[in-house]
Amino acid sequence: MSLLVVGSVAFDDITTPRGRAPRVLGGSGTYVGLAASFFTPVRVVGVVGEDFTAADEAVLTRRGIDVRGLEHAPGKCFCWACEYEENPNNRRTLRTELNVFEHFAPKVPPAYLDSEYLFLGNIAPALQCQVRDQLGARARLVGGDTMNFWITGSPKEVRQFLSRLHLLTINDQEAQLLTGEHNLHRAARAIIAMGPGAVVIKRGEHGATLYYATANGGSGTSYFGVPGYPLEDVFDPTGAGDAFAGGMLGYLAQQGGDAAPSEAVLRRAVVYGSVMGSFACERFGVERLTEITSADVEARYREFVALTRFEA
Amino acid sequence: MSLLVVGSVAFDDITTPRGRAPRVLGGSGTYVGLAASFFTPVRVVGVVGEDFTAADEAVLTRRGIDVRGLEHAPGKCFCWACEYEENPNNRRTLRTELNVFEHFAPKVPPAYLDSEYLFLGNIAPALQCQVRDQLGARARLVGGDTMNFWITGSPKEVRQFLSRLHLLTINDQEAQLLTGEHNLHRAARAIIAMGPGAVVIKRGEHGATLYYATANGGSGTSYFGVPGYPLEDVFDPTGAGDAFAGGMLGYLAQQGGDAAPSEAVLRRAVVYGSVMGSFACERFGVERLTEITSADVEARYREFVALTRFEA
Repeated sequence: MSLLVVGSVAFDDITTPRGRAPRVLGGSGTYVGLAASFFTPVRVVGVVGEDFTAADEAVLTRRGIDVRGLEHAPGKCFCWACEYEENPNNRRTLRTELNVFEHFAPKVPPAYLDSEYLFLGNIAPALQCQVRDQLGARARLVGGDTMNFWITGSPKEVRQFLSRLHLLTINDQEAQLLTGEHNLHRAARAIIAMGPGAVVIKRGEHGATLYYATANGGSGTSYFGVPGYPLEDVFDPTGAGDAFAGGMLGYLAQQGGDAAPSEAVLRRAVVYGSVMGSFACERFGVERLTEITSADVEARYREFVALTRFEA
Repeated sequence: MSLLVVGSVAFDDITTPRGRAPRVLGGSGTYVGLAASFFTPVRVVGVVGEDFTAADEAVLTRRGIDVRGLEHAPGKCFCWACEYEENPNNRRTLRTELNVFEHFAPKVPPAYLDSEYLFLGNIAPALQCQVRDQLGARARLVGGDTMNFWITGSPKEVRQFLSRLHLLTINDQEAQLLTGEHNLHRAARAIIAMGPGAVVIKRGEHGATLYYATANGGSGTSYFGVPGYPLEDVFDPTGAGDAFAGGMLGYLAQQGGDAAPSEAVLRRAVVYGSVMGSFACERFGVERLTEITSADVEARYREFVALTRFEA
């Protein structure tokens, strides 16, 4: 089952205590697409500039990603520079250059219109809604992500975006900002009331928690938690959240369910998300996601089984 | 198998966004003892003042706790006042009065000298070591806890204390302070190198992680993670860490293992710790721990099974 991913394809300039990587391929579309490609065929919609080389494109196509939806525009790729402290939760954005993204109007190519799975990566919520509109009723399961910048700057558009989602992935601080609730369980319930039937709150090194509206139609929510993978070196956390979303949506598309997957499938999808997010942190940029194999993914999934099991 | 608990028995003055409780029974000995009493016979060593009433004592004895080791001294009980913000991780200590604790020299009564399980609750590390000395070789499993105040103020004594422990329970910030490592997995490994074969890092709402030196004698550590219980109202987090330790040690004593319990037993002990810590947050002070039954404990344990399971 093909997964259509819309998001940024960008160059990042990343500084961490381990060193600097001044030009690495990044962006939400790149991370989500690469992570999802381990599970299902991926199609990407986005825009790149003249500095996007054949070698950059090959990073995507080597993983089988369909790049016919990648528009080539005059100018340079979206560019983001940031610096991490020793505590990787503390990062400072040094520079954001929209470049070709400034006037981007996403167009879903005709060949993609049969996509049944859709992930709206972190870009302006109005653009996310445009893509959603173009797919229409064919989309069986729509996931998405957003961030502080849009929650604060475009609250109305974010609400509209949320009302059209089946699944939201969001980090803890963003969930608090979006709902005004400090308690993450209450925040998740408030988000479910805004539209998506399922919410995953990404808690960085502390893991992730899934909240899922129960099928009986009441106000109940079901809860599932998975701890973080024990990474002793968080080399570069850039894109970990997007890789999480890619692993999760890729697995859901592979399983072929609809807008309300079974709870068992959703739970395993959260674990596959955790697997892909943990790999993303092990090298600069997408490097690790381009090295690993499906066998590595399965091996780490089995590790998650082992590190969470306590009942015979 | 009897568990001997040493710790403070105190009166707390707690203010939270939900209200104020100006005089509630608290202290590490109280929380650890009450939580452990659901699993195994508990004996407590500590000191109380003239303001400790028969009703206060009955809170312990109603749960079957042996209080012959509770010394009655002239003066008032240890007293601690604190205020929590809406984010319960942010708390401010308003007042600390040592009172009878100032000149406390713990004495293990002869009737307690056959205790095989020992928990050294959070008091001065020199006092913790005194109790450890008095039990001698009879102690099969020794657990303990400490806090920022001692890590910073008595680093040498804390190191000595750690060298004599089998199991340390500690929260995330304390683990970072103790080791100088921000990464909690590295911090746990550093703590294991200081003595205890097992460390549990308590992560508050994010759950807890266990690190366990693997039996093959190498430098390997095994890892187990459990998410936090989905509490929508953290009424009063005071004592949650101590209740966690009590649940964990109580279960270990019940299972009757030795200084190196099997990994399966250790893992279930972490879950029982999480169960008891979650109950502690549901009311002011120890109130909830005095209301619940063993059936409630088992029911919540089954909830933890349900909220962490993802493989058939």
